[in-house]
Amino acid sequence: MSTASTRLTKLLAPDELEAALRQIGATRYHNLHPFHKRLHGGKLTRGQVQAWALNRYYYQSRIPAKDASLVARLPTAELRREWRRRLIDHDGDGINPGGVERWLKLAEGVGLGRDYVASTDGLLPATRFAVDAYVHFVRDRSILEAVASSLTELFSPNIIAERVSGMLAGYNWITAETLAYFTPRLTQAPQDSTFALNYVKAHARTVEEQQQVLEALIFKCGVLWSQLDALYLAYVEPGMIPPGAFVPER
Amino acid sequence: MSTASTRLTKLLAPDELEAALRQIGATRYHNLHPFHKRLHGGKLTRGQVQAWALNRYYYQSRIPAKDASLVARLPTAELRREWRRRLIDHDGDGINPGGVERWLKLAEGVGLGRDYVASTDGLLPATRFAVDAYVHFVRDRSILEAVASSLTELFSPNIIAERVSGMLAGYNWITAETLAYFTPRLTQAPQDSTFALNYVKAHARTVEEQQQVLEALIFKCGVLWSQLDALYLAYVEPGMIPPGAFVPER
Repeated sequence: MSTASTRLTKLLAPDELEAALRQIGATRYHNLHPFHKRLHGGKLTRGQVQAWALNRYYYQSRIPAKDASLVARLPTAELRREWRRRLIDHDGDGINPGGVERWLKLAEGVGLGRDYVASTDGLLPATRFAVDAYVHFVRDRSILEAVASSLTELFSPNIIAERVSGMLAGYNWITAETLAYFTPRLTQAPQDSTFALNYVKAHARTVEEQQQVLEALIFKCGVLWSQLDALYLAYVEPGMIPPGAFVPER
Repeated sequence: MSTASTRLTKLLAPDELEAALRQIGATRYHNLHPFHKRLHGGKLTRGQVQAWALNRYYYQSRIPAKDASLVARLPTAELRREWRRRLIDHDGDGINPGGVERWLKLAEGVGLGRDYVASTDGLLPATRFAVDAYVHFVRDRSILEAVASSLTELFSPNIIAERVSGMLAGYNWITAETLAYFTPRLTQAPQDSTFALNYVKAHARTVEEQQQVLEALIFKCGVLWSQLDALYLAYVEPGMIPPGAFVPER
């Protein structure tokens, strides 16, 4: 996988690498996608928001598998502890619910059955393929690429703030409690992405490694973008729901 | 992955299993997709046909990897020889071109550069995710499921005949030579699918195995369908081309 527009010809200084990564976010992060603009702008029907929550659940549910496969490959206790924090954030500690559980609450809050969501029966196939691609990428690529693929979190605090305020304003059937998933993410994501950014700035020491880092982030942006593409096609315009996928109630 | 509509409650006779498989094809095979109807009906622009050829190339190019990973796991020389034929069909014998090479010719015939197509630079991310999902499925699931996932070939001779005649009638810039990819497939696909169908009818001996066979075919139909979904969204309606993907010339 390569993209002509980001082919490096010389080694970047660490801050130049960061700038190149932020430029990828500025052009490819899914806050630019029409589905997100509609979601935040209060322009979606309840069924469309349900489709989003249902499909995004699969992404949430696979994040701990993704992170565990990286923890399994990290070489030092220090690195493993750092990344293990993400497992706790997503799976909880047995007392405080983790991100996966909080997403199920969000899905219930928008009117879906918990068991139906967890079954993933109504998932869009494209959601499954994109999310699984991410899990496989982190499992199969270098540690550097795996860490770099997490860097979309650099851009998530803005989108989360926008999303929560926009959704509370736009949908009178959505409560702050329903959106409680996002509150801890506002502090977790910056902590995670600061570590990951420093890691890639320190460890991408050749042109080839820097190229890999940029392409890992481009790949991950594609994972997020294509999930919204699939939602848009199926549930917004032209409304082509694939066979077997969730059909909102009229 | 499960789908309520196909959950078996009792063991099917082999012919009932075949009927259930054919019913999946009748409701989920991608000949039903609006993109294919437009393709065959001569309703696409040259740029849209190019986008199809470019993206479908990635599918063609990964089929030998998919088949080789199954050959590597088959237990007998007889089975490996049977499945090895597919490798020859797709990669050629060094004299006669295989399916991958013939697809590059098709892509050139519709006006794309061979190197650009082979680089996969302009691929839709969703195409990559769907195709890779198929390769991973065949590598990671049981042999029975891997064989069953090939059964979309049961339905391909009809679509090929329809496609070739429709495209020759609908696009005066497409020649029979350009579509030469499809000619050998008219005999290869039935030979392959007859073997695979007999294999699953003989080897799916429990309700669970029959369920796996049905779900493997549903999965594969999703792989094909979601590729057309991605093409439709990006290049037909509403025309939302993801960042970095092929942009047709105006």
